[in-house]
Amino acid sequence: MTRASTFTASLPHWLQGRPLPEALATDEERMALVHELADLNWRAGNGGPFAALVLDSASGELIAAGVNVVLASGLSSAHAEVVALSLAQTTLGGWDLGGRSLELVVNWRPCAMCYGATIWSGVRRLVIAGSGPECEELTGFDEGPVRDDWREQLEARGISVTSDVLRDGALRTFAEYGGSASTVYNARRA
Amino acid sequence: MTRASTFTASLPHWLQGRPLPEALATDEERMALVHELADLNWRAGNGGPFAALVLDSASGELIAAGVNVVLASGLSSAHAEVVALSLAQTTLGGWDLGGRSLELVVNWRPCAMCYGATIWSGVRRLVIAGSGPECEELTGFDEGPVRDDWREQLEARGISVTSDVLRDGALRTFAEYGGSASTVYNARRA
Repeated sequence: MTRASTFTASLPHWLQGRPLPEALATDEERMALVHELADLNWRAGNGGPFAALVLDSASGELIAAGVNVVLASGLSSAHAEVVALSLAQTTLGGWDLGGRSLELVVNWRPCAMCYGATIWSGVRRLVIAGSGPECEELTGFDEGPVRDDWREQLEARGISVTSDVLRDGALRTFAEYGGSASTVYNARRA
Repeated sequence: MTRASTFTASLPHWLQGRPLPEALATDEERMALVHELADLNWRAGNGGPFAALVLDSASGELIAAGVNVVLASGLSSAHAEVVALSLAQTTLGGWDLGGRSLELVVNWRPCAMCYGATIWSGVRRLVIAGSGPECEELTGFDEGPVRDDWREQLEARGISVTSDVLRDGALRTFAEYGGSASTVYNARRA
């Protein structure tokens, strides 16, 4: 066995070739793009029905767009949030996005892993479509153990939270995914 | 601005060129290698004083060795656990390590992000040197919000936890790191 010394994740071809706006002015415009990419993503078979954007909160400049590529990359950590944050850091040239006021926009409350990844990235704002049990109920994914005071813990670290932006659009995507024959990749072959 | 469409993390050169054992029989042998790599890693300036291994629990076969390369890769998620798990998945060719009984060995309880990453990877066992506040106190790192019942949550998902393996070795590394002038990369330039 030759042990790997490098790992890589890439956006799917359909997203690499897709023209994206330079900037998005409102939370609703930002979330509408998230919903569109999340829906395209699971139908293309790259991974789960999740997408995330990193933007400049003030100007709306779009820094990175990510989707879940767990299946395409073979990496269990390649969730939409990790992909978007990592691409933003690659584009901007460093691990700390805190040099300007950037935000992460995603179509549900991040899972246990992505919750931590959000904190370490340096973004100052998290915008989500919702945060209840509906995501797990509709998709079958385990979102993992997160503290009940998850929002206060983010705010204590200087990350504001805006929720319920285009909530119905997220639920629609999850319901359509849940009704399909797609792989729900909770690990351990369970 | 050209947006990145790929991100990559690699082991540092000193680790890529280092001969590693094919297998490690006991928890103590496995943790001793973790401590050695963690200590070398921060001194080389690649990132924090953290290392992680993925091994076959029964045979001790070493599948992957990872270290924290946040500084070297420019990716805030490139913690030792994510690196080791991602390299193991790259070597074995898939996102689910649950096809055999693999374990993650790391020199403290994983941070909030790596805690979730451990769950999604498919490993069946987590071996740590310790889990108290000493890591944060000695190094200055924020480990993030984790539930008080973190261990039970892992065990409910089929991941057993073994703690306090060579605990003193971890504390020694953290204390030496904490006494140095190394970058503590809690984001947001804080």
